[in-house]
Amino acid sequence: MIIYFFVRSKSPAVRRKMDGVVESKEWYLAAYSPEGVPTSDNLKLRTVTLSLASHSIPDHHVSLQILFISVDPYLRTRLTGTLDGLFIPQYQPNQVITAYAVGKVVGSKDSKYREGDLVLAPSAPVAEYCIVPSSSILRKIDSASGISLPDYLSALGVPGFAAWVGIVVLGDPKPGSNVFISAASGAVGMSAGQLAKIRGCRVIGSTGSDDKVKLIKEEFGYDDGFNYNKESDYDAALSKYFPNGIDVYLDNVGGKMLESVLNHVNKHARIALCGMISQYNKVWTEREGVRNLLNMVGKQVRMEGFMLESYWNRFGDFAKDMEGYIKEGKVTSKNKINVGIESFLDSLASLFTSSNIGKVVVQLNN
Amino acid sequence: MIIYFFVRSKSPAVRRKMDGVVESKEWYLAAYSPEGVPTSDNLKLRTVTLSLASHSIPDHHVSLQILFISVDPYLRTRLTGTLDGLFIPQYQPNQVITAYAVGKVVGSKDSKYREGDLVLAPSAPVAEYCIVPSSSILRKIDSASGISLPDYLSALGVPGFAAWVGIVVLGDPKPGSNVFISAASGAVGMSAGQLAKIRGCRVIGSTGSDDKVKLIKEEFGYDDGFNYNKESDYDAALSKYFPNGIDVYLDNVGGKMLESVLNHVNKHARIALCGMISQYNKVWTEREGVRNLLNMVGKQVRMEGFMLESYWNRFGDFAKDMEGYIKEGKVTSKNKINVGIESFLDSLASLFTSSNIGKVVVQLNN
Repeated sequence: MIIYFFVRSKSPAVRRKMDGVVESKEWYLAAYSPEGVPTSDNLKLRTVTLSLASHSIPDHHVSLQILFISVDPYLRTRLTGTLDGLFIPQYQPNQVITAYAVGKVVGSKDSKYREGDLVLAPSAPVAEYCIVPSSSILRKIDSASGISLPDYLSALGVPGFAAWVGIVVLGDPKPGSNVFISAASGAVGMSAGQLAKIRGCRVIGSTGSDDKVKLIKEEFGYDDGFNYNKESDYDAALSKYFPNGIDVYLDNVGGKMLESVLNHVNKHARIALCGMISQYNKVWTEREGVRNLLNMVGKQVRMEGFMLESYWNRFGDFAKDMEGYIKEGKVTSKNKINVGIESFLDSLASLFTSSNIGKVVVQLNN
Repeated sequence: MIIYFFVRSKSPAVRRKMDGVVESKEWYLAAYSPEGVPTSDNLKLRTVTLSLASHSIPDHHVSLQILFISVDPYLRTRLTGTLDGLFIPQYQPNQVITAYAVGKVVGSKDSKYREGDLVLAPSAPVAEYCIVPSSSILRKIDSASGISLPDYLSALGVPGFAAWVGIVVLGDPKPGSNVFISAASGAVGMSAGQLAKIRGCRVIGSTGSDDKVKLIKEEFGYDDGFNYNKESDYDAALSKYFPNGIDVYLDNVGGKMLESVLNHVNKHARIALCGMISQYNKVWTEREGVRNLLNMVGKQVRMEGFMLESYWNRFGDFAKDMEGYIKEGKVTSKNKINVGIESFLDSLASLFTSSNIGKVVVQLNN
């Protein structure tokens, strides 16, 4: 059921495919961006020629046509030129950048993969085509699953997995627990809220507009939510929405919201730190300080940061759970699909403007 | 081997003991102290008369003569008039304050306790005499143990137990782990360093003078340490003392030191928050904000605050371990003993001036 690219396409790149050479557009790092939203000064698009001929693929490698690229906030921290914060290795100047992607195998030197296989590649070049070690492939996608490919980058991808680790593994709320999720209409938040509801929790989200508040209640099952842009006093908002305090907080924003949460935590509350999007565009000394960590002592709070790199051994458990929930209609995703590799930079920048709902994905049209 | 107080003493209070009535000095809350070091405006001494006659002791109660009072930083947080930070119930105006103490049973309406028994009372009135429910007694002290009574308030008391929970239960360092302990020459720090050394760790402490640095190395087994009053740049100091990063941090101070530690944590580091003495005399909005919590995400740090109230069920395990270590000479304590209940206020204030080494105890001379 997979229609091979080089059969259906008529582009110049494809014509060249006959001799195994393609033109491939790719994003590369032109200059680091210590602060602010990255621009075309930092990331640039170029076209390279790439041989995908069999003799050009080393053993235990595959060539991929990239179909969808996952645009996630953590990518921004790889562009600062400073190893802090998330401590993910920095992209290297003049080198193609990488991201989590869905690819289609177009050539293989590994018996586990055949032409036409759809695969998840957590660290694929942000490019139209690539050759990667087969060991870098996370797993094949079952094209008969009935699940859309973009969903493999949202509920079944990086943000869904992050939501699962944050809620199920670290937060571990009980039925009736009071759960708070920031950036609730974002890619992580939409799955996280639904996972907490599946556990029988009372779930409240914060998000950046009244429309998004409506959305998280109507589509993602949140019990309630508030627009942080309209609440000048987060403490008052949390008092209103959590009269019985907060048991579990999945933090996606950091800063003032995290500080306010620490004024409302219940004894033995758990805070899973998934990321801090409000802080990524600032050097650390300019970030908002959290002044009330002492509350963690009195309330005996456990706060834990996590990165998916430490949980890949749980990916199978996660995917089994989540595929079940998706098929049962218990978890749904909203995906914002931007078309063309050219849209990658704007897609990344859009993560920091509150303009998006759900998961931002770039669909390649090569 | 216990010489009864009313046999050896000649004080007026004792003469009155003949008819069961004693005069008892006690510290009470005169006025809350939201900020700064508490003074005699906040805590005052008064003398009350108290009947210790058998008919005055309710069933399941005992009368105690207090012998030693443990002076701990957390007491300060019960004097602010605001339930935040440690969230321990506030002392009530005009009421006698309470603390962890060693008492001697002078009368009993509980068959488990007899006159002369020495007991640990975690919430005893800061008074010369008292009548308390026997259920409030933690345990009897074995007077044949060879362990001094002040040690029951230091290595075997609140600070030693806090050190054990912080290092053994929450920090859980491995042989060779790099362990950092702030307020290293304080009551918690002296036990914590020795417990980490017993686990085979490399242990570095920070403390407030060169003499104290010498002390923690010579008496408490620390591998090295630094004087935070001489280090204008904590980051530079931590770079120097932790070339391989920090695996476990027992935080007793909070604020800038905690922030600096977060710039030096290794992947999967653990931070046990025992208390934040640098922050107790400030309202929370004036406390030092920690700006680099994002590092907890990238380094996947677990930070957990704790209060002993949740660990009393482990006290037996702790006491067994610690009594063994003390008897084997693997853990020693330095106790600063101030004589007379009158010294309680100055003793409490002294915790905030860096003037002390080790555990501050008030020995009553009634």
